[in-house]
Formats: sequence, structure tokens, C-alpha cells
Amino acid sequence: MRRFVIGQAKNLIDQTRRPRPHHNNIRLLSLLASDPIPVSSSRLFSDMPGSDSSSSLPVTIDSINPNVLKCEYAVRGEIVNIAQKLQDDLKINKDAYPFDEIIYCNIGNPQSLSQQPITFFREVLALCSHTALLDRDETHALFSADSIARAWKILDQIPGKATGAYSHSQGIKGLRDAIAAGIEARDGFPADPNDIFMTDGASPGVHMMMQLLISSEKDGILCPIPQYPLYSASIALHGGSLVLSEENQRDIVDFCKKEGLVLLADEVYQENVYVPDKKFHSFKKVARSMGYGEKDISLVSFQSISKGYYGECGKRGGYMEVTGFTSDVREQIYKVASVNLCSNISGQILASLVMSPPKPGDESYESYIAEKEGILSSMARRAKTLEEALNKLEGITCNRAEGAMYLFPCINLPQKAIAAAEAAKTAPDTFYCKRLLNATGIVLVPGSGFRQVPGTWHFRCTILPQEDKIPAIVNRLTEFHKSFMDEFRD
Amino acid sequence: MRRFVIGQAKNLIDQTRRPRPHHNNIRLLSLLASDPIPVSSSRLFSDMPGSDSSSSLPVTIDSINPNVLKCEYAVRGEIVNIAQKLQDDLKINKDAYPFDEIIYCNIGNPQSLSQQPITFFREVLALCSHTALLDRDETHALFSADSIARAWKILDQIPGKATGAYSHSQGIKGLRDAIAAGIEARDGFPADPNDIFMTDGASPGVHMMMQLLISSEKDGILCPIPQYPLYSASIALHGGSLVLSEENQRDIVDFCKKEGLVLLADEVYQENVYVPDKKFHSFKKVARSMGYGEKDISLVSFQSISKGYYGECGKRGGYMEVTGFTSDVREQIYKVASVNLCSNISGQILASLVMSPPKPGDESYESYIAEKEGILSSMARRAKTLEEALNKLEGITCNRAEGAMYLFPCINLPQKAIAAAEAAKTAPDTFYCKRLLNATGIVLVPGSGFRQVPGTWHFRCTILPQEDKIPAIVNRLTEFHKSFMDEFRD
Repeated sequence: MRRFVIGQAKNLIDQTRRPRPHHNNIRLLSLLASDPIPVSSSRLFSDMPGSDSSSSLPVTIDSINPNVLKCEYAVRGEIVNIAQKLQDDLKINKDAYPFDEIIYCNIGNPQSLSQQPITFFREVLALCSHTALLDRDETHALFSADSIARAWKILDQIPGKATGAYSHSQGIKGLRDAIAAGIEARDGFPADPNDIFMTDGASPGVHMMMQLLISSEKDGILCPIPQYPLYSASIALHGGSLVLSEENQRDIVDFCKKEGLVLLADEVYQENVYVPDKKFHSFKKVARSMGYGEKDISLVSFQSISKGYYGECGKRGGYMEVTGFTSDVREQIYKVASVNLCSNISGQILASLVMSPPKPGDESYESYIAEKEGILSSMARRAKTLEEALNKLEGITCNRAEGAMYLFPCINLPQKAIAAAEAAKTAPDTFYCKRLLNATGIVLVPGSGFRQVPGTWHFRCTILPQEDKIPAIVNRLTEFHKSFMDEFRD
Repeated sequence: MRRFVIGQAKNLIDQTRRPRPHHNNIRLLSLLASDPIPVSSSRLFSDMPGSDSSSSLPVTIDSINPNVLKCEYAVRGEIVNIAQKLQDDLKINKDAYPFDEIIYCNIGNPQSLSQQPITFFREVLALCSHTALLDRDETHALFSADSIARAWKILDQIPGKATGAYSHSQGIKGLRDAIAAGIEARDGFPADPNDIFMTDGASPGVHMMMQLLISSEKDGILCPIPQYPLYSASIALHGGSLVLSEENQRDIVDFCKKEGLVLLADEVYQENVYVPDKKFHSFKKVARSMGYGEKDISLVSFQSISKGYYGECGKRGGYMEVTGFTSDVREQIYKVASVNLCSNISGQILASLVMSPPKPGDESYESYIAEKEGILSSMARRAKTLEEALNKLEGITCNRAEGAMYLFPCINLPQKAIAAAEAAKTAPDTFYCKRLLNATGIVLVPGSGFRQVPGTWHFRCTILPQEDKIPAIVNRLTEFHKSFMDEFRD
């Protein structure tokens, strides 16, 4: 049989070497067999690529998917690669640079900067990870009573209590019930557990909707761009719904309704509001308050366990609430979710906990509130300190930090610095961020990665470094900035 | 500012209503702002779609991505939807059908069918989920000594012991070290932790490589198709590397080398070999044994925590080992991995444990081996029992169950049954599976979902139901099959 297999494949390839109009390359021999991996591209046998005599390897940078080449992702781009190299150098020689450590302000990753997880959430997670604990007396000495009760409740909602089984493609029904109840309590409008699709963080949900809705390169997407003239930087970068006034949200809903647009709302920063006069309103609440129902507006809300006060980035959990689609389109969303089998169960459990935390009277309630308020008030203080420090620097203007986890100051760079960046074949804000990194170990993201208005320069800085390190960061930033401006002053 | 935001967007839309050759639709208003979601499609403002007067919702089945519509996924398709409906009915009325429960033999999801997780793995996971446990004396009464030691080791490998932080995009370095060491021990050839990309199960890794390597609809993929004439059904469906002889694997490697093909090897069933005369050989081991190195062959091996004796499907963990790509292509793979941020940390931890389980001398070793052997020997017995039972049925031939978790018998259906299926506008094997489900509650996947040879009919059946339920399943299957054949006999 062996010979037959290979012989058959060779014959098929030979047959298809004849020119064919529609199939040019055989790229892969895929021995993938367990479950059928759905690939919408053709699986036909077809012409071979011309061989490249300079290498015996079949794949070159010119032969891969051009869309992959086009894709840019600044948050984990060049600057971060340099930072990792510096960090490696510091491990070998702690005196290699004029700083002791790399401070990653490039990404909203709170626990990497010593934020502690919420105890109750982790207690429940541990109990659901090793369910044998629930049958042991010693467990009561180690875990809060309400975490034990909650773990039992969650296990009862999982068929066979099997936390290691694939779940329903939308996520475990009982957990979606808890999330829907949490949304109802938050918004004061009904939420349907069948509208909830649990995801490994918000990003996979966004990718899923983009995959579904973008039918060709001819489709366009309206996207808030981080630029002062159009939006404030904070609206643009820090979660559209956070700083938007309710009136502004109503205008957006009307605009979508009138123009026939799908509204994808990133609502992952719903807990990160630091000013007393602002309050989070979900777009669904706003739309329903205006009298728009399921048949009036197509709205997808994304939530994640990575942000808020929980910051459980590494657990990869979240959900999207999908409303206002016809049933046949809904079936397609379900199909796409099915192809990914299901999101991870630990992330699903955490997503349900985030939307149904301890309540007054529960054993963990007081400590939960203390942990939550401690994290959020510290974030608010850090945001304020950094914002004020940035605004004191020559040429830098920074919006008020009202929410989320980032600042996006505008930096007015001297012409000489812009010329030096051009000479170094890099964008001026990237030039600034690289110099800062090499001088201080602080990792920022240049505004170039966020499609800022041409001719303006920004950088993104998280507010997440440990509070006791903020003064030192401010000092290093201030010192660097002064010497940079002195060096390049026009 | 509010008016300006909306006004500006309206102006832009008005401007672009003029006919343009390349951009036809605005589909989304995306308020996604936290991290830039990379979308390679254009974000330009452009023409509006023609409005559909029958609905006020903007998205119709005809306007979504046609590739999504084309995609089929039999394992979670129509039959499963019917099964879920029957299950719901049974909850309301346990006498609704001539069976008590739905038995899901459609998907390799062992823990959903009462397979228990490996205790040591879950101990480590619980300790890493709630690290405060490691500081408590009571913990020693509840957890094995080596699970505590392993949890400490893993935490020491995570920067800041932060199990809730995003990791390196390829996964936590220390865990990749453990995996590479496990591969080396298995194969006897070096493995580089920098070649390991940790993933949320094997599927996301496959999707990632497909996304990278498929550059247009003109690319072809050679894929084993589940058909008797070309392969045995077991090679085709049950993991290419399992039943393939080493000689056959060498031919495939030579074939890929000669024809310039990338070899994607699904090696998730490496632990699921049930016959004493067969042994798992990874394709990398085979290639290296033949003297082919990094510069000779492009090879990606996929592993998952969902299969084997571990069956941790819901935890979504796995990795791919990527060898034989140029550094610039490798950078692109890294970029795609970065866009997904990182795989979930619980899955990463389990993937490292699967490749570095307890060793002789460890406290858990004996119980670990007992659990592992218990699961694998039971799977072997179940496979054999089901295979023998199927081969006794009129018109059914089933290959020897040598590995993996599935049987893929060929069924010779009577012409009358084929005609009845045609009348019901369904494929004959789907017709058979639906009848079986309605009569017995057993869920199979019709072979139509696996691109079987036209004119042949198959179904896929997992070997995973609980061992004590197998006799009843065999009885129900046999009874149904007899009456089906009697009904449609030519």
C-alpha cells in the first residue's frame, strides 16, 4: 500500500503540472487527520512553484500570504524586541546599561507588573481545576466558604462536572446564564444567554466577527483613529465607550441605525473609570434606552477578563454579546465558533466570575471589595501622577486620564530630531521611543503604530507600573526628555 | 466635540458615496480601541451597500464572507444539532424516546464521557491557579510532594510568578524548555525551545500555519482523504503518523523534500497506539534519522493536550514545533503568534506537564502510571470490542483499531436506502446516522463530512464511551442496523 500512496500522489502532481488557469501552487503536504480542519481554500492538486536554486526550503518571504506581511502590530513590535535583547544583556551583566531593569509600559498586562489577582477568583479556579479538593475536610481551612459554594455551583452547571471537556461552542450554558444575569443587573435591560459567545479574550471575538463580516477587500471599516483633530486621544485609544458621553453614544447609535452599520463595541474597560463624574454605559443599554431593539440595530459588545481590576490576561477569557442579527447570520456565527471548538474552560469560569463577583453577605465580599478598590484607586493615582508629569515636559501635551490603562500624549518634536529620525530611516516617534528605551529601560509604543494623524507624533504609555516605582519612572523620563530636547533643540 | 465626531464621519461617508472602483461597502462601525486589532483588509471609507427594504438590519446571509458560508464542519454539524434537541426533550420528558440518554460518539472529547483527568496534572494546575496555597501548611496534606515541587518550579520560570500575565508570544520560556527536553528524550535528536510555539490546542496552530502559507485561492494542499482506494481509513482519519510504518514515513519525507512541500504533521495521537508491534515515530525523528536537517525540509509538528491519555480538551493547550524555515519567514510566524498575544497559561502549563510527566522515584509516579495505563488499556479494549461488533454487521467493514480514538467503518448501503436518502434530500450516510440517532440516541458523524470517495459511505465513531456502557451500545447498534437493513433490503 505504501508505494501506492506515494505513487498516487506523484501521479496526481504530474497530471496537474499541465498549465491550469486557477491553481498555481502546491504548498503543503498536510498530514492532518484527527478532526477535519475546515479550510475554505481549495484542496485541489495543481501546478508546482518554480524552484528557487538559492535555497532548498520551499517557503520564502515572497511566497507567504501577502496579508500577513502587510499586518502590523506595534504593541509587540520592534521596540519590544529591542527591550527583550536589553533584558537578556542585563541578565548576563547587570551593569550593562544605565538602568537595572526593563519597565514594560507597552502593553496592558497588569499582573506582569506585580498586580495581584483577586483572591476569590483564583480560589474558585483552583477548586475547579482539581475538583478532588471539594471532597476533603482540609479544604475548608484553605478556601473561603463562598469560593467552595461557587465551585460546586459551577461544577453542577458543567455536564458530568467535566472541566476538561470541550464545552458547547458558545461556552458552558450555566456560565452564560451568570453572564447574562450580570449584564441585566448592569444595564437594566434583558440579556439572553444564547446571545453570549465565550471567547479566549476579546481579540478572538473581534477576529471572528471580522472574518464573518469582511467579505472582500472592497469592504471598509469605520474605526476611531487616535488623532486629536477627530477625537480626543483618550476616546481614540482607551476604549470608545469610556469617555464618550451618553449623548455621544446616542449619536453613534443613531448614526449606525441610519447608515446601516454594524456597531462593534469594545467594552473591556467598563470597570476602568477613574473620574467620579463619568459612568460606564454599555452601547446596548444606550440603544435599548432609545427604544431600539433586536430588529433595529446590529450590535456586538466585547468584554474580557484581561482588563478591569481583574487583569487576568494570561487566562484568556472573555465573551461577546451578539444582538440584532438575523437567525441565518447567527447560525454562521455559531459555525465559526464551532470551528474553534470552544474557548478554554478556565477563562470561561473567570469570565462568569467577573460578571457575578461576591455579593454583600458572602464571606469573601469585604476582602473582594478591598482588593478591587485597592487596585482601581491605585490605577487612578498612577494615571494622574504620570499625566501630570508628562504635561510638565517641554512639547508634550497629555489628555486627562479618565479611564482605561493608557496615556497617549502628543509630542511636539524639534525639526532636528525629525531630521535625525529620517536619517536613521525611522519614524520620529519611534526614534524617540528607541532613545528613551536605551537610556532608561522604559518601553513605550510609538504612535505610528496607532495610525495617528500624519505629521503628529505620540507615544502610548500604560499606567500599570507598580505605584512605588512611579516616582523613579517620572524622574528617568523627565531627565531623558530634557537631554533629548537639549540635544535636538532647533 | 461630539457633533464634530459624528459630523466628520458623515462627511467622509458622503464623500465616498461617489462610485469608486475598489471599495464597495462600509460594513462596520468599530469602536475597538484598546490595542490595535490588526486587520489586513482596508480600513478606507467607501460606498454604502444598497439597502434591503425587507429588513432594517444591515447584515444578510448574502453579504457575509462567502468563505465562511463555504466552510463545513461535520463534527459539530446537523446531526449534533438534532442530538442537542433530543437531549433537551429528554430533560423535559425522560420517556420521550426509546432511549434514556444521548451518547456522543461524534467527537474526541474523553472527559465528557467520564474519563478522569490525571491527578498529578490537576494538582499542579490548582497550585499554579491559586499560588497562595503554596505558603500554607495544610497544602501538604492535600497535594503530593512532587506536585508542590513542580508548581514551584513552574512559578520560578514565570516572570514575577504571574500566572495571570500575558506570556511571551511563543509561550513561557521555561515551559518550552521542558517541552523541548521531552521531545529530545522521545526522539533522540535535539529540539530547540525557540522552535516551540505554544497554542490553544492543535487547531489554532494549524490555522496559524494555513494563514501564513496559503497566499491565494490558487494554492493547493495535499491532504490525506479518508478513502479506501488511496489510504486505509485509519491512516486517513486517525493521525497520519500512527499507522504509517516508518518506511512509509521515510517515503513521505523524501517526497516532500523532492517536491518542495511543507510537511504539516498532526502528531496529537502519539500516545494512542494500541498494538504492541507499532510504535510512534515523529516525522522529525524520521527526517533527522535520514540525515535531513534544518536546511533540507520544512516540517511543523502539532501536539495537543486534548488527546493522548490526558484528554484535556477543555483546557485548550498544545504546541507546534516549527523547523526548517528561513529566519525571515520565522519572523512572520512569530508576528502572527504575537497578534494572538499568547495561548492561555493553564493550557501552557498542561502542555509542559504532558511532555514532562512524573518520573520513577517521584511520589506521584506509581499512581500516574496506573492512571495512564488504565485509560490507555481501556481505550484499546473498547476499540477492539466496537471494531469486532461492527465487523459482524451486514455490509459493514471496519479496519483494525490500531490507534487514535476513532473507527471509520465503510457501510455498503442497500439501493433502497440510497433512494430513500435521495428522496429526503440528504446523503445516504447522513440518512443512516440520523435514523440511528433517532432510534438509539447514538451520535455518529457521517463520512460525507470527511470527503470520502464518491459512491462510498462511512461513518465515524469514537471509541470513548464508558467501558461499562459499550455492551449496551453494541446491542443498540446491532438491533438498529438489522432493522434498518431489513427495511431497505433490495
